[in-house]
Amino acid sequence: MTEPQRPHGYSAHQHARPAPVDRGRENAGHLVAGPATLDDLLQPVVVDEVSDAVCEHEREIRVEQARPWQTREGERGLAELCAKHPDRFAGYVGALPMNAPEAAAKEAERILIHGNANGLQLHTNVDGACLDEPRFFPILRTPNVPDFPAETKSKYEIWAILGWPYETSCTMARLIFSGVTTRLPDLKILIHHLGAMIPFFDARLDTGWATLGSRTSDEDYGGVLKMLGKPLMDCFRDFYADTALCGGRIGTVCGLEFFGADHVLFASDAPFGAQGGASYIRETMKVIAGLEIAQADKEKICYRNAQALFKLS
Amino acid sequence: MTEPQRPHGYSAHQHARPAPVDRGRENAGHLVAGPATLDDLLQPVVVDEVSDAVCEHEREIRVEQARPWQTREGERGLAELCAKHPDRFAGYVGALPMNAPEAAAKEAERILIHGNANGLQLHTNVDGACLDEPRFFPILRTPNVPDFPAETKSKYEIWAILGWPYETSCTMARLIFSGVTTRLPDLKILIHHLGAMIPFFDARLDTGWATLGSRTSDEDYGGVLKMLGKPLMDCFRDFYADTALCGGRIGTVCGLEFFGADHVLFASDAPFGAQGGASYIRETMKVIAGLEIAQADKEKICYRNAQALFKLS
Repeated sequence: MTEPQRPHGYSAHQHARPAPVDRGRENAGHLVAGPATLDDLLQPVVVDEVSDAVCEHEREIRVEQARPWQTREGERGLAELCAKHPDRFAGYVGALPMNAPEAAAKEAERILIHGNANGLQLHTNVDGACLDEPRFFPILRTPNVPDFPAETKSKYEIWAILGWPYETSCTMARLIFSGVTTRLPDLKILIHHLGAMIPFFDARLDTGWATLGSRTSDEDYGGVLKMLGKPLMDCFRDFYADTALCGGRIGTVCGLEFFGADHVLFASDAPFGAQGGASYIRETMKVIAGLEIAQADKEKICYRNAQALFKLS
Repeated sequence: MTEPQRPHGYSAHQHARPAPVDRGRENAGHLVAGPATLDDLLQPVVVDEVSDAVCEHEREIRVEQARPWQTREGERGLAELCAKHPDRFAGYVGALPMNAPEAAAKEAERILIHGNANGLQLHTNVDGACLDEPRFFPILRTPNVPDFPAETKSKYEIWAILGWPYETSCTMARLIFSGVTTRLPDLKILIHHLGAMIPFFDARLDTGWATLGSRTSDEDYGGVLKMLGKPLMDCFRDFYADTALCGGRIGTVCGLEFFGADHVLFASDAPFGAQGGASYIRETMKVIAGLEIAQADKEKICYRNAQALFKLS
């Protein structure tokens, strides 16, 4: 593979969603777009060629209730799409039948170790259960790169706009406090929306959780912080985060300061947003181009971190 | 009143909470501390002298279930405290018996128009009901300055750390979309924790809600955005926000860029945090001192905005 021309990069979170499919049904895993120039990324994804298996997922299946054969078919569709369009899609992350954890763990092994998937897409909960439950541990133990969207809705669609990043943040906290991230130090988790609520509230989280246990009488959290083996905020900084903030500059500056250039990956969330996703791509690239950081850091964000995290050749 | 010496200011959110009282019981309204120098603010509040009525509130009463006489007693305690320590407390904001909206509206009038309160403290919900419900409208119509903490708890105390600002953000959105803020253009609402999730996600909110209604089939949100009469994000910028981020610098920069210096007020959330609140005060002052903004803007944040919003003499 030749080194792509500037401006270029990978987009760590590209939905595979044919136009007629309802929004909010992005459960079939997602694509890693690139390496590409800005012009490449702006061209519409060849949605007509998304395989039936992927369409089926996008249309009908909630991963939380999926059967193993269904997620398997979806994964096959994503793999086919990447094979057919190597110039557009560098890889994909697959979905799992999370309501059947044992089957899901086997499936994770099949697609990650014996297959070509570059990671896993996990939602923040499985029918309300947090990912820190022991039954999901074998899945997380598989080398992978999950990220964390979630879906449902409420009045004025507040849940989709504010609830998802809230739930993302809660899941990060639970994966830390439950000991999952401590027991799996090599686990690499890419967080959607640049770490959600964590960067903006960094000092509040740090000082608020410094007294973890003081507000709770029915459980003993006395040993939790000590068990982490490092400062709490370092645990949050161990996550990776993508730039999918819809072109928001002030949030990007805040999130990048928190995670640092080694842990931030370009992503636009296309094809959501105006112009079939082109607007999010363009605005996010503009924000990164305008950041007052070293060119080497921009390269990390735009493609070097993606190459390492997704093991792209 | 003589102009205080630099560094000085008002703290827009000072809890009145005697030491023996459990945390998370801050339902008696709160104090506006100042005008004060940094040294003044760092001195411990004379907690022993907080009146019995305030203690009673802090200890036992959830505002959502309070009876009118109870919030009235609490308000009396705060008023007494201000009268006794005019050098420490410039004013206070009272609590209301929100479960009895008619009585609460009368009480709001009594303490704001005929009394000395400088505003109201409202929580983000009343036993689960949002403040945008019609029964609460008469309360909001009273000239006031509510802010929006909320309380409950969950595993690892996540609700207190992440849930409160999430709920704050949801309430802001509902007050806008329900038309409350449009119908009450003079309503001034001070949002705790520098606007919570709004600044970091500004572009995501703007573009995500641009298609309000597209994710909803059981209600028609077609006219909601048009009804606002101005761009959605301007509605969010109409709120005021306090600097209570526990000394977080990157969040403060982000929030200040969003709201602008005319809508940000100094607050530390003392006496929460280490050293009886001194740590939060000191760190928040340090952050503001280090901001690369005009001295005039720092003065607005530290006291001029508080003088105007709370109508301090």
